[in-house]
Amino acid sequence: MKELQAKAGVLVEALPYLRRFAGRTVVIKYGGAAMTEERLKESVAQDLVLLKTVGLDPVVVHGGGPEITEAMRRQGKQPVFKDGLRVTDAETMAITEMVLVGKINTQITAAMNRLGRVAAGVSGKDGLLLEARRMRGKHDLGFVGEVVRVNTGILEALRDRGFIPVIAPVAMGADGESYNCNADLVAGAVAAALKAEKLVLMTDQPGLLRDLRDPDSLIPSVRASEVPGLKRRGIIDKGMLPKMEACLAALKAGVGKVHIIDGRVPHALLLEIFTDRGIGTEITGGRP
Amino acid sequence: MKELQAKAGVLVEALPYLRRFAGRTVVIKYGGAAMTEERLKESVAQDLVLLKTVGLDPVVVHGGGPEITEAMRRQGKQPVFKDGLRVTDAETMAITEMVLVGKINTQITAAMNRLGRVAAGVSGKDGLLLEARRMRGKHDLGFVGEVVRVNTGILEALRDRGFIPVIAPVAMGADGESYNCNADLVAGAVAAALKAEKLVLMTDQPGLLRDLRDPDSLIPSVRASEVPGLKRRGIIDKGMLPKMEACLAALKAGVGKVHIIDGRVPHALLLEIFTDRGIGTEITGGRP
Amino acid sequence: MKELQAKAGVLVEALPYLRRFAGRTVVIKYGGAAMTEERLKESVAQDLVLLKTVGLDPVVVHGGGPEITEAMRRQGKQPVFKDGLRVTDAETMAITEMVLVGKINTQITAAMNRLGRVAAGVSGKDGLLLEARRMRGKHDLGFVGEVVRVNTGILEALRDRGFIPVIAPVAMGADGESYNCNADLVAGAVAAALKAEKLVLMTDQPGLLRDLRDPDSLIPSVRASEVPGLKRRGIIDKGMLPKMEACLAALKAGVGKVHIIDGRVPHALLLEIFTDRGIGTEITGGRP
Amino acid sequence: MKELQAKAGVLVEALPYLRRFAGRTVVIKYGGAAMTEERLKESVAQDLVLLKTVGLDPVVVHGGGPEITEAMRRQGKQPVFKDGLRVTDAETMAITEMVLVGKINTQITAAMNRLGRVAAGVSGKDGLLLEARRMRGKHDLGFVGEVVRVNTGILEALRDRGFIPVIAPVAMGADGESYNCNADLVAGAVAAALKAEKLVLMTDQPGLLRDLRDPDSLIPSVRASEVPGLKRRGIIDKGMLPKMEACLAALKAGVGKVHIIDGRVPHALLLEIFTDRGIGTEITGGRP
Amino acid sequence: MKELQAKAGVLVEALPYLRRFAGRTVVIKYGGAAMTEERLKESVAQDLVLLKTVGLDPVVVHGGGPEITEAMRRQGKQPVFKDGLRVTDAETMAITEMVLVGKINTQITAAMNRLGRVAAGVSGKDGLLLEARRMRGKHDLGFVGEVVRVNTGILEALRDRGFIPVIAPVAMGADGESYNCNADLVAGAVAAALKAEKLVLMTDQPGLLRDLRDPDSLIPSVRASEVPGLKRRGIIDKGMLPKMEACLAALKAGVGKVHIIDGRVPHALLLEIFTDRGIGTEITGGRP
Amino acid sequence: MKELQAKAGVLVEALPYLRRFAGRTVVIKYGGAAMTEERLKESVAQDLVLLKTVGLDPVVVHGGGPEITEAMRRQGKQPVFKDGLRVTDAETMAITEMVLVGKINTQITAAMNRLGRVAAGVSGKDGLLLEARRMRGKHDLGFVGEVVRVNTGILEALRDRGFIPVIAPVAMGADGESYNCNADLVAGAVAAALKAEKLVLMTDQPGLLRDLRDPDSLIPSVRASEVPGLKRRGIIDKGMLPKMEACLAALKAGVGKVHIIDGRVPHALLLEIFTDRGIGTEITGGRP
Repeated sequence: MKELQAKAGVLVEALPYLRRFAGRTVVIKYGGAAMTEERLKESVAQDLVLLKTVGLDPVVVHGGGPEITEAMRRQGKQPVFKDGLRVTDAETMAITEMVLVGKINTQITAAMNRLGRVAAGVSGKDGLLLEARRMRGKHDLGFVGEVVRVNTGILEALRDRGFIPVIAPVAMGADGESYNCNADLVAGAVAAALKAEKLVLMTDQPGLLRDLRDPDSLIPSVRASEVPGLKRRGIIDKGMLPKMEACLAALKAGVGKVHIIDGRVPHALLLEIFTDRGIGTEITGGRP
Repeated sequence: MKELQAKAGVLVEALPYLRRFAGRTVVIKYGGAAMTEERLKESVAQDLVLLKTVGLDPVVVHGGGPEITEAMRRQGKQPVFKDGLRVTDAETMAITEMVLVGKINTQITAAMNRLGRVAAGVSGKDGLLLEARRMRGKHDLGFVGEVVRVNTGILEALRDRGFIPVIAPVAMGADGESYNCNADLVAGAVAAALKAEKLVLMTDQPGLLRDLRDPDSLIPSVRASEVPGLKRRGIIDKGMLPKMEACLAALKAGVGKVHIIDGRVPHALLLEIFTDRGIGTEITGGRP
Repeated sequence: MKELQAKAGVLVEALPYLRRFAGRTVVIKYGGAAMTEERLKESVAQDLVLLKTVGLDPVVVHGGGPEITEAMRRQGKQPVFKDGLRVTDAETMAITEMVLVGKINTQITAAMNRLGRVAAGVSGKDGLLLEARRMRGKHDLGFVGEVVRVNTGILEALRDRGFIPVIAPVAMGADGESYNCNADLVAGAVAAALKAEKLVLMTDQPGLLRDLRDPDSLIPSVRASEVPGLKRRGIIDKGMLPKMEACLAALKAGVGKVHIIDGRVPHALLLEIFTDRGIGTEITGGRP
Repeated sequence: MKELQAKAGVLVEALPYLRRFAGRTVVIKYGGAAMTEERLKESVAQDLVLLKTVGLDPVVVHGGGPEITEAMRRQGKQPVFKDGLRVTDAETMAITEMVLVGKINTQITAAMNRLGRVAAGVSGKDGLLLEARRMRGKHDLGFVGEVVRVNTGILEALRDRGFIPVIAPVAMGADGESYNCNADLVAGAVAAALKAEKLVLMTDQPGLLRDLRDPDSLIPSVRASEVPGLKRRGIIDKGMLPKMEACLAALKAGVGKVHIIDGRVPHALLLEIFTDRGIGTEITGGRP
Repeated sequence: MKELQAKAGVLVEALPYLRRFAGRTVVIKYGGAAMTEERLKESVAQDLVLLKTVGLDPVVVHGGGPEITEAMRRQGKQPVFKDGLRVTDAETMAITEMVLVGKINTQITAAMNRLGRVAAGVSGKDGLLLEARRMRGKHDLGFVGEVVRVNTGILEALRDRGFIPVIAPVAMGADGESYNCNADLVAGAVAAALKAEKLVLMTDQPGLLRDLRDPDSLIPSVRASEVPGLKRRGIIDKGMLPKMEACLAALKAGVGKVHIIDGRVPHALLLEIFTDRGIGTEITGGRP
Repeated sequence: MKELQAKAGVLVEALPYLRRFAGRTVVIKYGGAAMTEERLKESVAQDLVLLKTVGLDPVVVHGGGPEITEAMRRQGKQPVFKDGLRVTDAETMAITEMVLVGKINTQITAAMNRLGRVAAGVSGKDGLLLEARRMRGKHDLGFVGEVVRVNTGILEALRDRGFIPVIAPVAMGADGESYNCNADLVAGAVAAALKAEKLVLMTDQPGLLRDLRDPDSLIPSVRASEVPGLKRRGIIDKGMLPKMEACLAALKAGVGKVHIIDGRVPHALLLEIFTDRGIGTEITGGRP
């Protein structure tokens, strides 16, 4: 009985957070270890279903890099990267779409639906959710796209009937072709379009680190105006660049707060939302 | 961090119960020690606000015996009881109404509203929620009433806009007079009228006891059909009689389950709803 | 038959007023003789139920001074006033709340509910309708509050389901305590928050009098800009001061018109609304 | 002031009737002197607008005999009647429709719209409100129809947006032709289709008279089961026959009460609805 | 089968137009030969019902000149015109209203209702759809009006329930009198009030002609700014003047496009909406 | 112009069908040549978008046999069939899901979305649309399932916001595993659950043939009661068996009509719905 009461106490502690976030939309970029380790996958599914059940509106965007590479290799194709971006010819795009929509997306929704009739997978092409154009840059990367418009109709349809939308970052071009988009940037664009309360990016590090080799060098809070300086000093670099771009775009569009959290921590999502200090790095405040 | 994750684990454990009860109405008779001890009052308020916040629809009915007696004494009136029921002349009724509606009810709602804008007190006369007639019996008890009709309009109005209705058991007669009603019976009638999922009666004992002097003699589960036998054997007796009458009326009207719980246990309400076995005594099943 | 037709004629005469006010909100400060004399109480109840029935949305705020004093005396407490305001210690506040919410409010709603299932009492603490802070002034008056915020959710919930809200002027502080507020000012704040069509203050005089001793010195119409001058000349004085403050606050917030009427006249409310000239004093027009 | 209060008293007297009929549909057959005398036309318009304004839903069906005959004569056509029914060839039908829809109907709605934006004329052909077939009988009467179906969609569309539908009794046949229908029977069919609370037929006599020459021989109340006897004794005869048929059809379909009233009395409609005894003859009760 | 597939192909060709106009309002001035020749009347009815069925919202305004003149002659009245406008005394107005509302309007709706339960006739006086004042000019023309206000409530009521409103251009003055209004101008005012997507005026010529005697001199497209020049050069003249005035008023109020089409061509309406180039003359673009 | 009018005539011919099917649900099993030949794929996409645009509610279920086999072969796996059903081990199921959801489904929706923002792909696992259990039979076929429950929530969510749901026949078991289901049977179950107006099965033959080798031996209409006889005589055989089972299940659940049509004919869907005789074989009428 003592133990039961301690548990009741935990529920009661969550009350102020529950009340603060009731009916608010939280967009989550789901990726990294949290998407590959069984124990973490289960914990993320639980967190998402719990959030929906207690009255928040989570929207999930997932990535899928390693599995695409693996599927390509299995079909005898060698991935080519330029400046960290995958060169995507038509065949690669077909494999990418098949893996993202037909495999990773269905696994994520299935894990949630085992806990309740709650998740619905959507490709960015469904209901033209994501309209993209060929990415501009110094290299021609083929079917790599950047989002030019988000049509949120299908997300609202699902949300209003009690579903959590889980988005595969495949978009449709005005040319009718499929485009592969960066999942971080898709999450930012979706959060912006939905005027979400929060955008949460799950990574495989504790947050933004002053020194990547030192996990204790976490920067707990960053203002948008500090970002250019952090880039110049190389603290925001590589894979963190598109993440930060997504963060700034979301903040600019009116999203309240953005968080970069450590997806390797079980229940990281709940902890982020249901504790005062949050975990990882919080990015706040308007235009840089 | 370990501790935080343990807490997250508790939230996740609650998930199946949250999903099962989402959108369901639970009518709670609030009384006894839970209504007088500061620590318990706080714990009940937290439980009710939490239930509402995570998607259930609690409706509260409270009693008030001791405070009425005290207020009468303060005004120099001596309470008279016949067969355990207070003889209620016009002056006593005025004091009763003033204490129930103006003091006890406002204290209960205030405790909840300190946690959020969530509770709304209603007298049974508001919107003619409770229509009563003079109780029939061998003694004339004055303005003691029995409920003949429940008009749920005001409860629905409040529930649909996010409020927890807190009901003082004062009813209105066809003669335009106020009547004092037994709070257990009012709770049963309200649960029946709302076709509630559950009716929970808070008492100052662990539940229905085989032997009142032995707290370990709890009967965890009773079927409606067993009630007449338990009465004959004196196990259901005295104050438990109106409680059991309320239970049977509610079950007969289609309420799913009825629970008699120990209001002296902190967070008894949460424990009842968020654990498999529940606590106290559960009464189930149709007509006796 | 002739007499019946004359009556039909009266109904027809009301038609233009009915059409003009259909669906409009009218906030009424109810107090004075109209709240104590039996015949007037009945007439006010009829007027309010009639207004609701023909399509207006009346909202009532009542006072309660004399009964609070009487209840205090009965409990052996001596009221203390400073500058016309009651010094309100915790015990006085408890009595005040009990009398306002548990006695006066329930009597007003009961009178209306005898005519139909139509009225619902609310304390200003219900659903945090009235948020207050301790009144600032040269004396510490204890739990005397001034309204800092009106949360109209509960009023809309009741109105939309066909009920007339009847408000007891008890508010809740950020400190979780109860505060007694001036009913005129509460009526003004509620009218402002609801953007009411009209605010009507019932008094025990014919309206604003040029000379208090001469009932024929009624000023039928005052513009907001004239108020400072009338104060300087002592024509607006004493109990009329908070009334006028309520009027100006309401006008400033966009309420169409404010009326100070004679509550001692039977059916004063109907006469005010259903005749061209109105009765009493009308205050109009924007910021002073 | 005394006079004003007397008027207020009249309004208050109407309160119980207002509450009883709020939101109820009343179908009114409008005809006879009330449709030709200026003073009565004005009084009927006022009554209808008042009923709508205070919350009832009046639906009007009008006749038009004399004006049709006059229009035919003006165009050099001689009306022919068989068994009291007008033989209606194509040309007569064209004149009939033009007069009913283009003249009488527009005059009735205009009289109401001068009092507020409230009335909307409909032909029975609009939205196929009235579907008819050629009347069967011993004579071929041409385009005289009997209603076989009422499509209430257009009435609901108008009612829900605050309009009083005013129906000209022209129907459409499955052959695409226009048919002239008896207005009493149309009123009965519309009341039946709308499951109206009341059907009121306005006539040029005090109600059903035991002796047509003796206005004091009014039968105040008739049960449906008495009708066959009254017919046999010739008390129900001639023009009263279709009226009684309309009454019985409406009662059979679930209309609560039917009234035959004297349209020559100013405000007869209001008197019927807002007095206890009603006026004229009331027909009640189930199948004959 | 080949023929069937060709037909399917035609449906498919219409797809982009169907999607572009789904849910949009199109106001159509119906008049001229299309309203008098049997074959064209049938074709217009089909077009309108088809447009409604596939998701557009057509609203029709009809004229009626020749039939009014004929009806006047039949009653021995000689029409008088001044500057092309009919002098309209009270008797003429009565005939005009009877013919427009009772004959032409009912014929138009009947033709549509033979194809489905879809059309509803409205006089401009119904629900005060059209409020007018006496036309100002050098001659007193009697009851000739100009629209001063359009109350679209009744149109929305009908549209939202699946009906096509068909409007007779009779308006109501503040004096309670009926006024005859120019149907082109009514169509323009209605299109403006509804913020229609399109206004289409049906005429008896191919569109705006550079030379009235040369049907090949059609001007396919005119900008609003060119209109003054075209007037000066006499290309816009006589009956085209009120049409052009209606067009400009509609464009100014935000209507997207205006078309003057040849009503003598079967299915002219469908062709206008379901082909790229449209037919007749298109007028575009803002204030002149 | 003549040609344009002929086209308008085709649209008008479709009018009665448009009106009959407005707002009705049609479930389409999409498969065979219509899903592999470019020209037919385009024609099916056009037909579906057209049906949605003109007011019907199409719901699509697709199959995918050949592509799954091909994908398996590409990954070095040899398909095994028992009694015509694919033995589906875990790896085969993974490939099946990836191809059905990630490739075929996305191609079908993309073809439609090129014509408008209209299609949304759903796996049967999304929102637990399809709940299945392992198919019972003499062989263990692994993850081959039969539908035990259809949760239509997600279909209604999409339909009500203007989307065409396109369903991949992958279901979820109570064991949390994915199951491959026969697309014909899924279409039948979905039609039954939605109480669709029609179920249309696209095949690669003209319909049900008396002699498979003779395309002229089409049976245009079959009553459900005739099916057992046709099976005994071998006319319903092999691949036609599950199709007929789907048909009977749908009819039994209240679907109005079922059609087996030739998907090799361009615009077969439109022809079926927009012609009187329909094409292919129609199955009608209740329980066998």
